[in-house]
Amino acid sequence: MLQKTSSGNFFEDFRLGQVIRHAVPRTITVGDVSLYTALYGTRFAVQSSDAFAAAVGYPESPVDDLLVFHIVFGKTVPDVSLNAIANLGYAGGRFLKAVYPGDTLHAVSEVIGLKENSNKKTGVVYVRSTGFNQHGEEVLDYVRWVMVRKRDENAPIIEQGVPTLPKALAPGALGTACPRIDGAEWNEALAGSPFRFDDYEVGEKIDHVDGMTVEEAEHQIATRLYQNTAKVHFNQHSESKGRFGKRLIYGGHVMSLARALSFNGLANAFHIAAINGGRHVAPLFAGETVFAWSEIVDKQPLAARSDVGALRIRTVATKDKPATLFPDKLADDYDPSVILDFDYWALLPR
Amino acid sequence: MLQKTSSGNFFEDFRLGQVIRHAVPRTITVGDVSLYTALYGTRFAVQSSDAFAAAVGYPESPVDDLLVFHIVFGKTVPDVSLNAIANLGYAGGRFLKAVYPGDTLHAVSEVIGLKENSNKKTGVVYVRSTGFNQHGEEVLDYVRWVMVRKRDENAPIIEQGVPTLPKALAPGALGTACPRIDGAEWNEALAGSPFRFDDYEVGEKIDHVDGMTVEEAEHQIATRLYQNTAKVHFNQHSESKGRFGKRLIYGGHVMSLARALSFNGLANAFHIAAINGGRHVAPLFAGETVFAWSEIVDKQPLAARSDVGALRIRTVATKDKPATLFPDKLADDYDPSVILDFDYWALLPR
Amino acid sequence: MLQKTSSGNFFEDFRLGQVIRHAVPRTITVGDVSLYTALYGTRFAVQSSDAFAAAVGYPESPVDDLLVFHIVFGKTVPDVSLNAIANLGYAGGRFLKAVYPGDTLHAVSEVIGLKENSNKKTGVVYVRSTGFNQHGEEVLDYVRWVMVRKRDENAPIIEQGVPTLPKALAPGALGTACPRIDGAEWNEALAGSPFRFDDYEVGEKIDHVDGMTVEEAEHQIATRLYQNTAKVHFNQHSESKGRFGKRLIYGGHVMSLARALSFNGLANAFHIAAINGGRHVAPLFAGETVFAWSEIVDKQPLAARSDVGALRIRTVATKDKPATLFPDKLADDYDPSVILDFDYWALLPR
Repeated sequence: MLQKTSSGNFFEDFRLGQVIRHAVPRTITVGDVSLYTALYGTRFAVQSSDAFAAAVGYPESPVDDLLVFHIVFGKTVPDVSLNAIANLGYAGGRFLKAVYPGDTLHAVSEVIGLKENSNKKTGVVYVRSTGFNQHGEEVLDYVRWVMVRKRDENAPIIEQGVPTLPKALAPGALGTACPRIDGAEWNEALAGSPFRFDDYEVGEKIDHVDGMTVEEAEHQIATRLYQNTAKVHFNQHSESKGRFGKRLIYGGHVMSLARALSFNGLANAFHIAAINGGRHVAPLFAGETVFAWSEIVDKQPLAARSDVGALRIRTVATKDKPATLFPDKLADDYDPSVILDFDYWALLPR
Repeated sequence: MLQKTSSGNFFEDFRLGQVIRHAVPRTITVGDVSLYTALYGTRFAVQSSDAFAAAVGYPESPVDDLLVFHIVFGKTVPDVSLNAIANLGYAGGRFLKAVYPGDTLHAVSEVIGLKENSNKKTGVVYVRSTGFNQHGEEVLDYVRWVMVRKRDENAPIIEQGVPTLPKALAPGALGTACPRIDGAEWNEALAGSPFRFDDYEVGEKIDHVDGMTVEEAEHQIATRLYQNTAKVHFNQHSESKGRFGKRLIYGGHVMSLARALSFNGLANAFHIAAINGGRHVAPLFAGETVFAWSEIVDKQPLAARSDVGALRIRTVATKDKPATLFPDKLADDYDPSVILDFDYWALLPR
Repeated sequence: MLQKTSSGNFFEDFRLGQVIRHAVPRTITVGDVSLYTALYGTRFAVQSSDAFAAAVGYPESPVDDLLVFHIVFGKTVPDVSLNAIANLGYAGGRFLKAVYPGDTLHAVSEVIGLKENSNKKTGVVYVRSTGFNQHGEEVLDYVRWVMVRKRDENAPIIEQGVPTLPKALAPGALGTACPRIDGAEWNEALAGSPFRFDDYEVGEKIDHVDGMTVEEAEHQIATRLYQNTAKVHFNQHSESKGRFGKRLIYGGHVMSLARALSFNGLANAFHIAAINGGRHVAPLFAGETVFAWSEIVDKQPLAARSDVGALRIRTVATKDKPATLFPDKLADDYDPSVILDFDYWALLPR
């Protein structure tokens, strides 16, 4: 009798250059969009209103970029990170094509790096994951690396290698998922802010003021919506005996909370064009309250288009500590309240 | 560097006659409708079934009236009540046009009253808020008044005034959002009740029997669905140091729970045509159980149409006390269990 | 004044042969489908992806079979089981026609059995419930029996009788809700498993590995989504004084959790064609973690079609105990961890 269940891949199961086609394709609908709004309270006008989106140049409201990210990410979990100890980071993420309700996404990953740890018990796996729509068009790709257990400490790792990853996407790589925006039709009162690309300065820091407390039911509902199967998020029976004694909240949930909170200060940053990097600095648990602040790291026009410009933003999320004083990376380590350090390019109308 | 975040308006920031165009427009979809059903368990047949709605005269199921109300209300929060201490009341609410999935709503408010309190620390702001669809048609308007903090106690308030508000809408103002209903096609078995307009008597009281316990995750999901940004509903970190030590549930959540519970006794009261008044008598907190009872205050035919009639209903919601004995307003004050006193006109087939 | 509220039927209110047309019809939408995914994390490819469904022979993704079951079941509660003490079992359930988003369901039940208990305080009611779509076509029927209180112990029960129920549906009765499946287009990588009908053996047991902890908000949201009005699921005020001191989770919630967990091992079992039987062995409460294992009880080809075969599966759900050792029915009783014993026919591609 064949073993019918999958226990996921262990470190020695991966090969450099290996291509993994992930299950299960997923049609995104307005139902998913409503749940995303209900889980985070996001308010960006392009994604909230078909009428606003149509006025500025989209055919209709596109699906929130991070909802697309979470759904693509979720597909990779059973093959890449079911036996992961830690999700170490992201880099080189590009939103390549807008996704609309009715589109069906699937995902493919390529193993681009393998590095065994000196303890021989674990190793770091680097994958470039790509999300495709039903026409086979790439909608998103990104690199992530995770620390994965070995099944057998004695299993030899033949070929290793660590990829060179960009610190940030070049501005020239941005904007393919964004149609030409008609800035004259960008109604600032409806969008919620008069501040466009030119109003932000490099070095500027913004405290997003509000805080959001997370409940177990909320992060479980979110993570299942993304069909993310990582056990640590759902199984209190096993987690009660685990590292933390409780369920760990999916890191992407924090990204979406921080992004939604950032509306207050960045209301016109309507599109995440690229994810330069992301680090889950510390875990979040139910009952804790998330705050966020952002820093404008860079600002760049986009080649050959004058409708939008790109702000490179670092959004830092904290827990149980308002962001008034911008808790940040210290000399050696982060302020203990910091849970997320997220570096991305967002587009704003000019 | 310009201040990018909004801290909301304080009492001295409002002017009589001021018009505020609120962010952010919102397209309502079947996803929102499903969430509304899942949050309250509402069962009114016109809103539950496209087939039932089409049989009686709607093109398809309209969006629940209170979902429309909450979405319009949510838009007004960042401008009107971010610094509110209390939401004091509603009056003169009219549902003017049916809303269908796919419609996009935005909201505008006019300041129609200002009254500084004698302590000079707060004042009462009266606004008439109007919700519009994507064609610029009015779908809902209502007055609410809130007590708002002053930023600066010494700020002078130049012009004050208190509007005269109707105790109830006149029957002649009702019904514009309701198409002609074909009463012969109104299937009572499917609707859940044989009782039509003529079966109710003025003075009649109905105990809606059932109770519903509210969880933190539920009211947070609801309130974010409405893109309502009032901090007291979401931020346990700050609320733990506040008046109640815990998060306050959005008052509109209670309205929707009471309305859903009222199905048992008012199943054919398919459309809220007007909100005469509403008062959040006491706060609701997670873990508490909501009950409701209703009194028929008035009944009126609608001019020039014989298909439907209007019941003026007072629905009273309590917490942690069944409504068997109709807990009510006493001589001086309300029974301590009462949390909502809601006065509205509902239409029923004749 | 007529009593406007319903207190449900008591045992002496039922008559053999009585036909009950249930309120309220319900249009199922993609919003309901998203919530279903978010509540259980279900991943079966046919229901998850319009593109996958279309490739193998469906017009688009059908609505999950158990979501259809829960919605039909929910309609029967106010008339059949509002005064039930226990939901004793299911039998003879057939999925007769696929349901798609936009379809409207209503339900009719026939009383097919009545058996008073010797204590004269309760009796067992057997109903055959049928769900219909907006075209009047049967989409599902099933028998369930419940123990219902008598209003009056002295009420005489005139006609009694117990129906003969099949232990399992015959294979010839299966498959009418399933279009011809193009097995060559069944992409195993996308579906999540290489194991088709021929790869399973009678007697094979599968531990589905994962566990899912249930929160109060989750089961309440689910049960309201199904417009199921049974008080025990929602009212902590009354349940705190009841049998268990807490809210009881709707048994169907466990069925859907177990089915979603069974994806890991049964990913290609894409359609529940029939429910042979089901028993809620013990109650589930919030905070407990559900596990599941399955046994292949029988396997049969379907007459006149070579595209799919039927596995008869027994899925057993446990709480707070992993299914590694297959906790089961013992000589006299079940292992104390078992909460559900669910026997159904599922179709797989050949």
